[in-house]
Amino acid sequence: MLADQVKALVFDVFGTVVDWRGSVIQEGEALSRRKGLDVDWPRFAEDWRIEGYSQAISRIRVGEQSWERVDVLHRRKLDELIIRHGIVGLSEAEIVHFNRVWHRLNPWPDSVPGLTRLRTRFTISTLSNGDFALLTDMAKHSKLPWDCILSSELFGCFKPDPRIYLSAAKLLDLAPAEVLMVAAHVGDLRAARSLGLPTALVPRPLEFGAGRPWEPPDGSEFDIVADGFEDLARQLGV
Amino acid sequence: MLADQVKALVFDVFGTVVDWRGSVIQEGEALSRRKGLDVDWPRFAEDWRIEGYSQAISRIRVGEQSWERVDVLHRRKLDELIIRHGIVGLSEAEIVHFNRVWHRLNPWPDSVPGLTRLRTRFTISTLSNGDFALLTDMAKHSKLPWDCILSSELFGCFKPDPRIYLSAAKLLDLAPAEVLMVAAHVGDLRAARSLGLPTALVPRPLEFGAGRPWEPPDGSEFDIVADGFEDLARQLGV
Repeated sequence: MLADQVKALVFDVFGTVVDWRGSVIQEGEALSRRKGLDVDWPRFAEDWRIEGYSQAISRIRVGEQSWERVDVLHRRKLDELIIRHGIVGLSEAEIVHFNRVWHRLNPWPDSVPGLTRLRTRFTISTLSNGDFALLTDMAKHSKLPWDCILSSELFGCFKPDPRIYLSAAKLLDLAPAEVLMVAAHVGDLRAARSLGLPTALVPRPLEFGAGRPWEPPDGSEFDIVADGFEDLARQLGV
Repeated sequence: MLADQVKALVFDVFGTVVDWRGSVIQEGEALSRRKGLDVDWPRFAEDWRIEGYSQAISRIRVGEQSWERVDVLHRRKLDELIIRHGIVGLSEAEIVHFNRVWHRLNPWPDSVPGLTRLRTRFTISTLSNGDFALLTDMAKHSKLPWDCILSSELFGCFKPDPRIYLSAAKLLDLAPAEVLMVAAHVGDLRAARSLGLPTALVPRPLEFGAGRPWEPPDGSEFDIVADGFEDLARQLGV
């Protein structure tokens, strides 16, 4: 039985635990009100995420660009997007603060109650490409009850690099089969599964907003498919 | 003012946060009762700590022995001490379990309330030579409310190696001057101080037991001398 074999749960964070898009839009709109700006914040948030993070990480993964902290990747794209979206009148301190919106992402409604339940039985950790300090700040901001923080920054590469999953299990002093990887994204889970980690898919239909056509991913290749973290806890008998 | 400059507090753990000696004695005495053993547990605990950990780490630090996880160092000495103290009748599973007493050390009475207060204002982390999993397990066992776990295992060397203190500050995305090192031991604090970290000495007169003659260390070279973590919180204005 999976729940008896598993000792720790490691979680993808951006999209799986927290609503990056909604959080960036919310802070962006507050900035618009304070500064009298007119910005398409949903578009801004998605450009920032996809160009500034996902595409940068892909380039780093194939060796076209050297490893850098995610804060640095975010800032580089933010400087571009400020120009592209015609934003004026921000001080350097305000830009630094806004770049750190990624340290202040808000959880999905089921995240904190589900994690709190899961923690009573399992060790729970992040396993994210976010920087160590980013993940630590976010946990404090959003009261995410992690037992420890595991970040790709500790290993100098990015998911889905196999070293991330195997090094995480090793630091937890567990066999891969004892570490359940939880994510909303099949690529992350497939990488973990190929290394012997059990996997739980928790689809997040709202990751790219409510207006977006969304098809539930096929979860048949994973050990668990759960509708949020409370359902995940229930399926693991917690 | 120090409390305004500091963003994170990092703590030595063995002796500073938890009572390793009392905890090992307590589990040892329970083992004696279950197995009908007659063992000098205070002596056993001190031999285990000093020979199995402190002396092994000194040999690793000077290059006489290669780096190993603390669990492994503890187990090697435990096998010796079992023979030296004439302990018989333990299964391998019982030895494995007893070796992990270091994952189950109990906090000093002021540790959890003090950390809980400090956490409301600062990021708080371990900065210990204990293994990552050991520190994570201990936090769960003793309800230590860390924001994150930092272990020398992440850096492949042991305190007081300068890399430990500087890498910890880097992972927290802070300057050394923003990270307060808290310890009961002057050697640890001196290493941190020489690298630009502010320091707080929290003497633990009972680390080696109540019967031992103990002289309070001279704390004049450190930024703070506190009588426990609640006093530390008070001195930092929390």
